[in-house]
Amino acid sequence: MSLIAPESVEIRLGERSYRILIGSGLLGDARHFATVPAAASALIVTNTTVAPLYAAALRSALAGRYREVHVLELPDGEAHKDWPTLNLIFDALLARGADRKTVLFALGGGVVGDMTGFAAASYMRGVPFVQVPTTLLAQVDSSVGGKTAINHPLGKNMIGAFYQPQLVLCDLATLATLPPRELSAGLAEVIKYGPIYDMDFLAWIEDHTDALVGREPAALAHAVRRSCEIKAEVVGQDEREAGLRAILNFGHTFGHAIESGLGYGEWLHGEAVGCGMVMAAHLSQRLGGIDAAFVERLTALVRRAGLPVVAPALGAERYLELMRIDKKSEAGEIRFVVLDRPGSAVVRSAPDAMVREVLAQCVGA
Amino acid sequence: MSLIAPESVEIRLGERSYRILIGSGLLGDARHFATVPAAASALIVTNTTVAPLYAAALRSALAGRYREVHVLELPDGEAHKDWPTLNLIFDALLARGADRKTVLFALGGGVVGDMTGFAAASYMRGVPFVQVPTTLLAQVDSSVGGKTAINHPLGKNMIGAFYQPQLVLCDLATLATLPPRELSAGLAEVIKYGPIYDMDFLAWIEDHTDALVGREPAALAHAVRRSCEIKAEVVGQDEREAGLRAILNFGHTFGHAIESGLGYGEWLHGEAVGCGMVMAAHLSQRLGGIDAAFVERLTALVRRAGLPVVAPALGAERYLELMRIDKKSEAGEIRFVVLDRPGSAVVRSAPDAMVREVLAQCVGA
Repeated sequence: MSLIAPESVEIRLGERSYRILIGSGLLGDARHFATVPAAASALIVTNTTVAPLYAAALRSALAGRYREVHVLELPDGEAHKDWPTLNLIFDALLARGADRKTVLFALGGGVVGDMTGFAAASYMRGVPFVQVPTTLLAQVDSSVGGKTAINHPLGKNMIGAFYQPQLVLCDLATLATLPPRELSAGLAEVIKYGPIYDMDFLAWIEDHTDALVGREPAALAHAVRRSCEIKAEVVGQDEREAGLRAILNFGHTFGHAIESGLGYGEWLHGEAVGCGMVMAAHLSQRLGGIDAAFVERLTALVRRAGLPVVAPALGAERYLELMRIDKKSEAGEIRFVVLDRPGSAVVRSAPDAMVREVLAQCVGA
Repeated sequence: MSLIAPESVEIRLGERSYRILIGSGLLGDARHFATVPAAASALIVTNTTVAPLYAAALRSALAGRYREVHVLELPDGEAHKDWPTLNLIFDALLARGADRKTVLFALGGGVVGDMTGFAAASYMRGVPFVQVPTTLLAQVDSSVGGKTAINHPLGKNMIGAFYQPQLVLCDLATLATLPPRELSAGLAEVIKYGPIYDMDFLAWIEDHTDALVGREPAALAHAVRRSCEIKAEVVGQDEREAGLRAILNFGHTFGHAIESGLGYGEWLHGEAVGCGMVMAAHLSQRLGGIDAAFVERLTALVRRAGLPVVAPALGAERYLELMRIDKKSEAGEIRFVVLDRPGSAVVRSAPDAMVREVLAQCVGA
């Protein structure tokens, strides 16, 4: 049971609007699911790591609302964010006679959320779903905004849909069981909101990095709420990433290349994004948007959050090749999210020679 | 080049509105693609049967608008409307560096259209696409309205999206090369619009069955246009099948069971729908919506169109099992589209015993 009432952030998207609830002990409390559509059955999609921790509590909370509540455990990790694993969800739905009203619950991190969301978007051309993110990264970023996808061997998140959940329920208590590496990975996406959108928030993160790494509840609660507020503002203005929303991909062009080049799962997504932000900062400096001091400030924060700041040696040609199949690319030209000043980001291209200089500067031996 | 200006039917769906162009010789004429978004590249998705007939003409028509126009030939037939074949489209797009603006062109029948549409809905979370249907069935039904899907071993069209094309271009000249069995299959969906929506159109079809089977251009043109008009009216009121749109599935609950029970591709979709309409008519009579004379009238028309009116002997239990996983089912209860009077359809359930009587009546030895 929650000891204090959860905080609420609204995502305003017309008839697709929904709420993010943020608080401690939410997922075991049936009251918080009162606004979710009723149906004969629900399917909780989770993974083998999260299931033993939280599936029983969520299942109990839903038992009064759905006659049947099934639990499907997927293998854990980004390496399984693929079609065969997605198809396990379809198999489970069809084997259990799930219909168009069946509600899917994504209980886990970004991989579980992305796959469950895409399954919900595609099963019978769309069934309702709820995000119950249990990692910091999923709570501050991937569970909010309706981006769902699986990976293709040739590129990350290449096959998916924009499909909004009915509710996002961020239970801060789940962060207590998060491995330290995963906590740091989530901090990468928290840090991101500072340089692209809110310099006050960046300063707050700098002041509270130790508290965040130390999992102080009040600090985590503020980080999650402010991150969700910023994401809600951006997504509310540009749901399908026609423009503004792309700034949320700061660090992701380099980051996706790292993830894909090393093989999915070698680095965590947030680790790649952390290092990718350092690389994007260097590129921003070369393009004239920020100075060396700001690059150093951001690099120091990424390092203090426990994230890598030196990129793996994939080779410059391989980096360029991988970045050309990024979704922001157009007509073969790589498009980067860069800072045009501290607190503001834009999408633009950069000369290959300049990108090579950044790679030479950021890649380890 | 078109000899006469094409007719146009508008699908009104707010910002997702688009036109259906209907005429002869359209697909080789660049002028008809002037409203389609420009991009660096386009991919024509077709199959091994249609490609030798029309791919070169379409490619030429697009060559002035796209720097690169690629052609991908899929294997032909409903049996290939599955994930591995869909993935061939993603492979082709990624291998060729397709970006978010790349336009997909579906050149073929319903299978090509459904798979290309779902690929367009999912590639990078959505790229533009154009339907160029080359079968009667696709021109009067599947290319219009934005339903896209692939089959799952446990059910037809179970994985897909509502995703609207930019344009539908019905080139009546392509119907000249259609095998007779495919022409009849298309007539099943033409006939469908009569009993569910427009008794005048039903009478017109009865008067022109020989002309349609004989492929008289004026008759085909009217059949395609009126079918598209009715579909546009219905879809314009209920894009995502929350209610009214379900009437377009008249004959499809029984029909999908036939297709799935025999194995996809054994009967053509339109053949299964033709026989399924006869079965649905018998059920409608038992439910009191129509009389025996109307059942006989519809059966006679289906037969004259060259379609089967006797259902395959799958066994009553298997029929019921297959129909329970139809997308219209709710909480395990099969929902049928039945006629509540000639020219009007509703969705409702029926007692299992009554469905068994219909099966006993309609299934061959």
